[in-house]
Amino acid sequence: MPLPDRGLDYGDGLFETMPIIDGNIPWLSYHLERLQDGLLKLGFHSEAHSPVRDYIRTALDDRRLTGVMRLTVTRGAGMRGYAPPEPARPTYIVQISCADSAGQPELPPAHVDLCSVTLARQPLLAGIKHLNRLEQVLAAKERQQKGLDEMLMTDTSGSAVSVISGNLFLLNGNQLLTPTLTDCGILGTRRRLVLDELAPTLGLDCLQVAMTAADLESADEAFYCNSLRGYQPIGRYGDRRWRRHRIALRLQELYRERLLTCAA
Amino acid sequence: MPLPDRGLDYGDGLFETMPIIDGNIPWLSYHLERLQDGLLKLGFHSEAHSPVRDYIRTALDDRRLTGVMRLTVTRGAGMRGYAPPEPARPTYIVQISCADSAGQPELPPAHVDLCSVTLARQPLLAGIKHLNRLEQVLAAKERQQKGLDEMLMTDTSGSAVSVISGNLFLLNGNQLLTPTLTDCGILGTRRRLVLDELAPTLGLDCLQVAMTAADLESADEAFYCNSLRGYQPIGRYGDRRWRRHRIALRLQELYRERLLTCAA
Repeated sequence: MPLPDRGLDYGDGLFETMPIIDGNIPWLSYHLERLQDGLLKLGFHSEAHSPVRDYIRTALDDRRLTGVMRLTVTRGAGMRGYAPPEPARPTYIVQISCADSAGQPELPPAHVDLCSVTLARQPLLAGIKHLNRLEQVLAAKERQQKGLDEMLMTDTSGSAVSVISGNLFLLNGNQLLTPTLTDCGILGTRRRLVLDELAPTLGLDCLQVAMTAADLESADEAFYCNSLRGYQPIGRYGDRRWRRHRIALRLQELYRERLLTCAA
Repeated sequence: MPLPDRGLDYGDGLFETMPIIDGNIPWLSYHLERLQDGLLKLGFHSEAHSPVRDYIRTALDDRRLTGVMRLTVTRGAGMRGYAPPEPARPTYIVQISCADSAGQPELPPAHVDLCSVTLARQPLLAGIKHLNRLEQVLAAKERQQKGLDEMLMTDTSGSAVSVISGNLFLLNGNQLLTPTLTDCGILGTRRRLVLDELAPTLGLDCLQVAMTAADLESADEAFYCNSLRGYQPIGRYGDRRWRRHRIALRLQELYRERLLTCAA
């Protein structure tokens, strides 16, 4: 990559990580809409989004790949200093890694614990998938050291936000609850899929609410989701154990069906 | 730069921006100590710092350059995902741009106003000069649009932290006050120089305190500092104007003398 680039200099940009299944990216429009939202929030010029779909198509190039694509869009080169160039000429980077499968791996229920790294509250950057991810790096280091599958992340005021690499859902009776993400966190594409389609299909009410770590302990079921892991039940959090994962398993089933339709 | 690199992927790294005067970097040890502190806080391995001095020396290469050096240290390549590789092999990037002068330009007193972008409070990342700088990018965009020299940045709870690219000092009587930076902000090298040397030389008490935007308005004098601008008096903040800049001008004088000694 040619330097200087504001993506490296300041994390001035956005990214998307997307499974590729047999040459297709499922729910690509969700990824592109989140990217577009991020470009607007960071004040990129209005055409920054236009070539993205073409770059993705060219990279997939009709090969029936299975794996992962990372798309990164930065504000490109600029003068020294924080102020962005006007107009900026964005840098677009498409990276593909191949894999045997993608989308919804078969994994045992996750062992999760509370992370000591708390997320700073910054409404201006909440929801979007920008390149400033040091909090997640520090959290993932802790997860690794503790040998856990995932960790629950709260913000500096004690609200539950997500796991490190995915969105959190709790089941209470017939209600599916997920944290509102107005102060921090990322609006995940598979979170949106639950809200838009999967919860209604399963006859569940899905609500975005404020919640705490204690709400996780008292939930009937709990799971998290992201584009590479699909829907993963949580089997253990601290001393709490769940043996039934009725909703997560039904979501997995529904999701696998949809993935097959995408790849067809 | 070879990709993938965690510096671009997540802003997983640190940087220093340093003036070069006639082949020398003044207060290089302050920059290197802050970098070392950052490497520790981000959990880089303990030898990550060792080659830095050699890279800088090689880049300066006995040429009597004047300009600016940016040193970037990232956590290098890694597997996909937030978790850092163990051990990581850091990437070191030295970029030099030449200039006619460096250190303490002659500028009129700055026109400053309050920035609408507030800084998130994240004690884990406070003080160090890491690569996650989107807040500063958004703030600098606002500064540019408003045609101001600098902007006062407060945090999300209303405490004054700094200007966008420098540390803030207020004079009240014989006391020099600067914000404590435990929740956000960068521990600037020229801030440290005031605390360690310049304030005592001028017979001033220098205190790190909590302060608000209102404290700036009521100050006898105000200035900010960074390594490329030295000590810059604030001439105007909102409706408040200052015509005397006794302390900032004395600091400039003292600082220019020290810069000459460095370059000798």
